[in-house]
Amino acid sequence: MKIKDWGEENFIQHLLQQFPITENLVGIGDDCAVIPTEQETSWLITTDAFVEGVHFLKEQIPPSDVGYKTIAVNVSDIAAMGGNPKYAFLTIALPKNLDTIWLNHMVQGIKEACKKWDILLLGGDTVSSKRDIFLSLTLVGSAIQSHIKYRHMAKPGDIICVNDYLGDSGAGLKVIQKTLSKPQKLTHAHFHPQPNPQEGMWLASHDEVHAMIDISDGLNCDLQHILTASKCGAVIELTNLPLSQPLLHICTNNSWDPIELALTGGEDYCLLFTIAKEAFQSVRESFHKKFGNHLYAIGQVTDQIDQITYKKNGQPLKPLLDDFQHFPHK
Amino acid sequence: MKIKDWGEENFIQHLLQQFPITENLVGIGDDCAVIPTEQETSWLITTDAFVEGVHFLKEQIPPSDVGYKTIAVNVSDIAAMGGNPKYAFLTIALPKNLDTIWLNHMVQGIKEACKKWDILLLGGDTVSSKRDIFLSLTLVGSAIQSHIKYRHMAKPGDIICVNDYLGDSGAGLKVIQKTLSKPQKLTHAHFHPQPNPQEGMWLASHDEVHAMIDISDGLNCDLQHILTASKCGAVIELTNLPLSQPLLHICTNNSWDPIELALTGGEDYCLLFTIAKEAFQSVRESFHKKFGNHLYAIGQVTDQIDQITYKKNGQPLKPLLDDFQHFPHK
Repeated sequence: MKIKDWGEENFIQHLLQQFPITENLVGIGDDCAVIPTEQETSWLITTDAFVEGVHFLKEQIPPSDVGYKTIAVNVSDIAAMGGNPKYAFLTIALPKNLDTIWLNHMVQGIKEACKKWDILLLGGDTVSSKRDIFLSLTLVGSAIQSHIKYRHMAKPGDIICVNDYLGDSGAGLKVIQKTLSKPQKLTHAHFHPQPNPQEGMWLASHDEVHAMIDISDGLNCDLQHILTASKCGAVIELTNLPLSQPLLHICTNNSWDPIELALTGGEDYCLLFTIAKEAFQSVRESFHKKFGNHLYAIGQVTDQIDQITYKKNGQPLKPLLDDFQHFPHK
Repeated sequence: MKIKDWGEENFIQHLLQQFPITENLVGIGDDCAVIPTEQETSWLITTDAFVEGVHFLKEQIPPSDVGYKTIAVNVSDIAAMGGNPKYAFLTIALPKNLDTIWLNHMVQGIKEACKKWDILLLGGDTVSSKRDIFLSLTLVGSAIQSHIKYRHMAKPGDIICVNDYLGDSGAGLKVIQKTLSKPQKLTHAHFHPQPNPQEGMWLASHDEVHAMIDISDGLNCDLQHILTASKCGAVIELTNLPLSQPLLHICTNNSWDPIELALTGGEDYCLLFTIAKEAFQSVRESFHKKFGNHLYAIGQVTDQIDQITYKKNGQPLKPLLDDFQHFPHK
């Protein structure tokens, strides 16, 4: 059997069986591993890789964005559990004939991101590769132990929320792949994502916020992660998905489906979380007061284990479910 | 300019300038980063990558050894600073048509190594690669803050020691590359190295042990790291280098120079350290009593900054120095 027939999820399940965690730790399967300390803070640790030809095409993405995005996607994982990013460890494998100008720009992107989130690059490994560029970043963050949000904490009745537009990054990728004239907001969303560590920490400090994750694989897939871990289901009202004007505009012009991009485009790097129904209004108002941005209620958690029902103006759209569940993960 | 003209050392120097560390932390440039806690223990964090076609050839190394070695080389970095390995984070990039049998054996090798050193695999990232296999491991260890050994702590007069044979791994690699009949001890030294965390922790608990590093790039190169960091020099007596019988045997049969392999072969993953001269005998005896193995005194630290003088039976061998300093790093 080949790797492609096995799939990442199955491989992760295999690893979970091979490497059971017996201590008071959370390991493979959440956005970060959690290592408690004897103080009230815990360490969060996450790792994300960025591979040429798979996650980016060298000729299409500015090298500074390769560096920036390598940090940003990991910041998003720390944000998803309510933590504060602190220390980075970077592995870079580079072909020997890569130009140092490319490398310098890439390093500037890392520097920009480290400065933005007050992260110290403390180590890593620089090695040769035969052909392709590989980057792997391990990011260490800290979080107040009692605030940490996991995927398994959603409860039936919770309101399902996101804190930003969906689908812009996916549309940006489509624009790049089709070499259309580039609407900057969409390609920027794809190359230069904005993770939400401040928002994540703020939400994490609220007991009424239950489960949280960041949207990396797409709303459908990441919501499924919460539901599986929480042994719940969900109803999503598609007319409530927050869609940006540039997304709606390019979809109209090219006959693309903005809902499909919002559900499966991925790499939005906003937060997806559930809030106790009775607390939703007050959390939404406080959030707006604090950040000047909206929380978008897009659906509700149900007790129908692992089932996502998509509705449009209250009418269930059954076929959507199957289509989207077979959408290949990155 | 191309990466190959710049070199890893220059790139690391560049990164050090770009990412200065202002807090009470040790960052890029030692074997591990050190993150102090409010307790007497600190965290040590290290990252090492393992790339197909550069660090291993898939057809030559058993997949279980790829997994084992990915953990072992990082354990060696933790050992080099006197720490105890604890938590691992693994990034794997795999081509889609790789056979899952290979992957399963690789995972078994990781499992063997994790069991051997009581390490918990807590997370990571599994992604596709276009062509080559790429592994990157971040290993978190703990150490008693006051015990941690750095590269910069060598003092003129210190005795320079190693705790195991040199050159076996380098000879093993040569045997594999030349597809000679394989003396198992040498190829095993290359594929299945034995890092020394227990020995490292024990040495670290002795104040008389000053600087420490593990031998990954080869004695010449790694000693240079200690000397540069400590602003010292060294005299090495080549007749004192510990060489194994299988190494001497294969060198005689193939007209190879065992000294060259000991100095530049690399990947020995034993410890290289300096001990205050007056304490050397007692530390050596206690070490032998504790571990049943020898410490080998191979030279002495001098005040001649950055100068390594190689002697044979007390006679300086000047030309050797230049030859070996231009030996390309991996």
